[in-house]
Amino acid sequence: MATILTLAGDGIGPEIMTQAIDVLNAVNDKFTLGLTLESGLIGGVAIDATGEPLPDETLARARAADAVLLGAVGGPKWDGIERSKRPERGLLKIRGELGLFANLRVAKLYPQLANASSIKPEIISGLDLLIVRELTGGIYFGEPRGIRTLENGEQQGYNTMVYSTSEIQRIGKVAFELAKTRAQAAGTAPKVCSVDKANVLEVTELWKQTMTQMQQADYSDVALSHMYADNACMQLIKDPKQFDVMVTGNMFGDILSDEAAMLTGSIGMLPSASLDVAGKGMYEPCHGSAPDIAGQDKANPLATILSVAMMLRYTFKQEEAAKAIEQAVSDVLDDGLRTLDILDSSEAGLKQVGCIEMGQAVLAKL
Amino acid sequence: MATILTLAGDGIGPEIMTQAIDVLNAVNDKFTLGLTLESGLIGGVAIDATGEPLPDETLARARAADAVLLGAVGGPKWDGIERSKRPERGLLKIRGELGLFANLRVAKLYPQLANASSIKPEIISGLDLLIVRELTGGIYFGEPRGIRTLENGEQQGYNTMVYSTSEIQRIGKVAFELAKTRAQAAGTAPKVCSVDKANVLEVTELWKQTMTQMQQADYSDVALSHMYADNACMQLIKDPKQFDVMVTGNMFGDILSDEAAMLTGSIGMLPSASLDVAGKGMYEPCHGSAPDIAGQDKANPLATILSVAMMLRYTFKQEEAAKAIEQAVSDVLDDGLRTLDILDSSEAGLKQVGCIEMGQAVLAKL
Ligand SMILES: CC(C)[C@H](C(=O)O)[C@@H](O)C(=O)O
Ligand SMILES: CC(C)[C@H](C(=O)O)[C@@H](O)C(=O)O
Repeated sequence: MATILTLAGDGIGPEIMTQAIDVLNAVNDKFTLGLTLESGLIGGVAIDATGEPLPDETLARARAADAVLLGAVGGPKWDGIERSKRPERGLLKIRGELGLFANLRVAKLYPQLANASSIKPEIISGLDLLIVRELTGGIYFGEPRGIRTLENGEQQGYNTMVYSTSEIQRIGKVAFELAKTRAQAAGTAPKVCSVDKANVLEVTELWKQTMTQMQQADYSDVALSHMYADNACMQLIKDPKQFDVMVTGNMFGDILSDEAAMLTGSIGMLPSASLDVAGKGMYEPCHGSAPDIAGQDKANPLATILSVAMMLRYTFKQEEAAKAIEQAVSDVLDDGLRTLDILDSSEAGLKQVGCIEMGQAVLAKL
Repeated sequence: MATILTLAGDGIGPEIMTQAIDVLNAVNDKFTLGLTLESGLIGGVAIDATGEPLPDETLARARAADAVLLGAVGGPKWDGIERSKRPERGLLKIRGELGLFANLRVAKLYPQLANASSIKPEIISGLDLLIVRELTGGIYFGEPRGIRTLENGEQQGYNTMVYSTSEIQRIGKVAFELAKTRAQAAGTAPKVCSVDKANVLEVTELWKQTMTQMQQADYSDVALSHMYADNACMQLIKDPKQFDVMVTGNMFGDILSDEAAMLTGSIGMLPSASLDVAGKGMYEPCHGSAPDIAGQDKANPLATILSVAMMLRYTFKQEEAAKAIEQAVSDVLDDGLRTLDILDSSEAGLKQVGCIEMGQAVLAKL
């Protein structure tokens, strides 16, 4: 009897979550998975209800659950709140408290959506790359941090980017192992590109050294390359298919994974997993809470639905159920259904649908 | 009698510098600018000759000069050297020592090269955006920094991202002022987008607050927007023409300016300026030392040649001479001359040329 905690959050979170839960319930029945669903509060809605972006009760239930499914957090309504209480802090805190150090973000091009991207089709056709982002360390969590008043009266803001060898090894292992799994499935040679700024930052010099040592000691069967973050940002545009697995720290990973997602033109399609050492995970869409379209039945629920598939695969080892969801999503795209974000108005035969119609179409395919 | 110090540096540095110097000498004569050229050592060649990436003599001459023209530094030959002595340290040190806090990088699409980009032509046609990057602060220069051994025996790397109000104001002013100048020239309304990660990093929260205060106090005629770095990285791909002037810190600026340059497909074309409070500057191409093609007469000298134009404009206020160089560059592109990096093999009527032929063609147009 496994439990999933759903945290819809803010903005479009509730509407995409409703569709994802429908899909989850459907596969739960169909494949008799025996999953129990609970729901809880995080982000702005949690602030409104309890004053805290991650109430203790939510954290306790997240710890007790076998997996967490998250919608999105944040919105202008809570922008004026004191820093330590903002919606994003709830997200950072749950990542940290649950030890979800390994963030997996896949940038995959859906062939049906090849034209939705700003990038020329030949550059991205067949793109399927995995960014492994360290999620509980680096400058996101480093101390000391804050804003202080200097002797001359002006203010100074400061943050600390910090990684220890063991933190780097822990995320490096995830990247090397996933590169092997992916290569085996694809019949290719495994490769990992580690992204740093070792020519400037000592912390990423340790990162680079540690990755090199791991490769030499334990992963000589995986080709390891290194790239500076600025160059990686360029190469993702120039020739993204040169990459298979990229591994990097929290901040570079934040930026590069968003860039990679945007390359596909379908960030509304991309799920992510954040895993702890035992493989327990939190699953969420790569996109944000999109307050500008919240409550208007315009959001794309597919990234959240695909996050359910990822959850079934990684945490519950239910490959068949995961595949069924992914197939259903592909089928509705084949049928020409498109939410606004993935609609190519120059293409004939497409039908613009809202969040509910898209979710229910996936459900019907299952 | 003004003096320019040329620092060719490593990799393709010497060959692109040779062409740029030819061009500089030509306009010096033609417009009787009275400029004197000197040359000096920086980067790997300086290490080989003196053991230091920025010898004291070079620094002293850079201080004495009215402007510095830089090629590029670094290469695999010096990768094994102790951190504090690497070529890049010479670059960082000259930026810091000369107080070159304002780095201006223009991402401009040359209409002749519209097809060289990975981005669809309609997304980038007419693109001309300016990234104002803070260059002597932030995590690049922040202390404490280093790699230490922890009590448990493992290593830990750490860097500090730090900005004070006055540092932010100084770069903010450059951005607001340039936005006004550009808007006046283009007949548009001035706008600045400030890029931060204020939802996570306190240092960038101070950045955001300070920009907001400056706008309210002194630049109410400039439209100011704020964007998180991850979103900015996406928006640059989705719709780069939404931006005119972007202003950000050292590290985000490093990444975003490379991304913006790559959007144009012609990073080999893009110059940059790094200015101090008095407008004295160092000028260099946005691209690096490209050791893989060094010495093969394959490099594109145009970014360095256009850096000369930027130098004439910003430091020497010689708009006419600057325009003459830019026109000559545009003319050789119109003639169909292309170095390898900007060659679109699917386009008819182009002629592939080497570094020397390209440089001399520009010279012939002057
Ligand atoms: C909302 C924000 C704190 C978060 C991050 O920076 O990690 C988001 O951008 C993400 O990538 O999940
Ligand atoms: C070479 C390196 C130190 C430098 C930087 O990171 O600033 C380069 O990438 C640049 O952008 O000029």
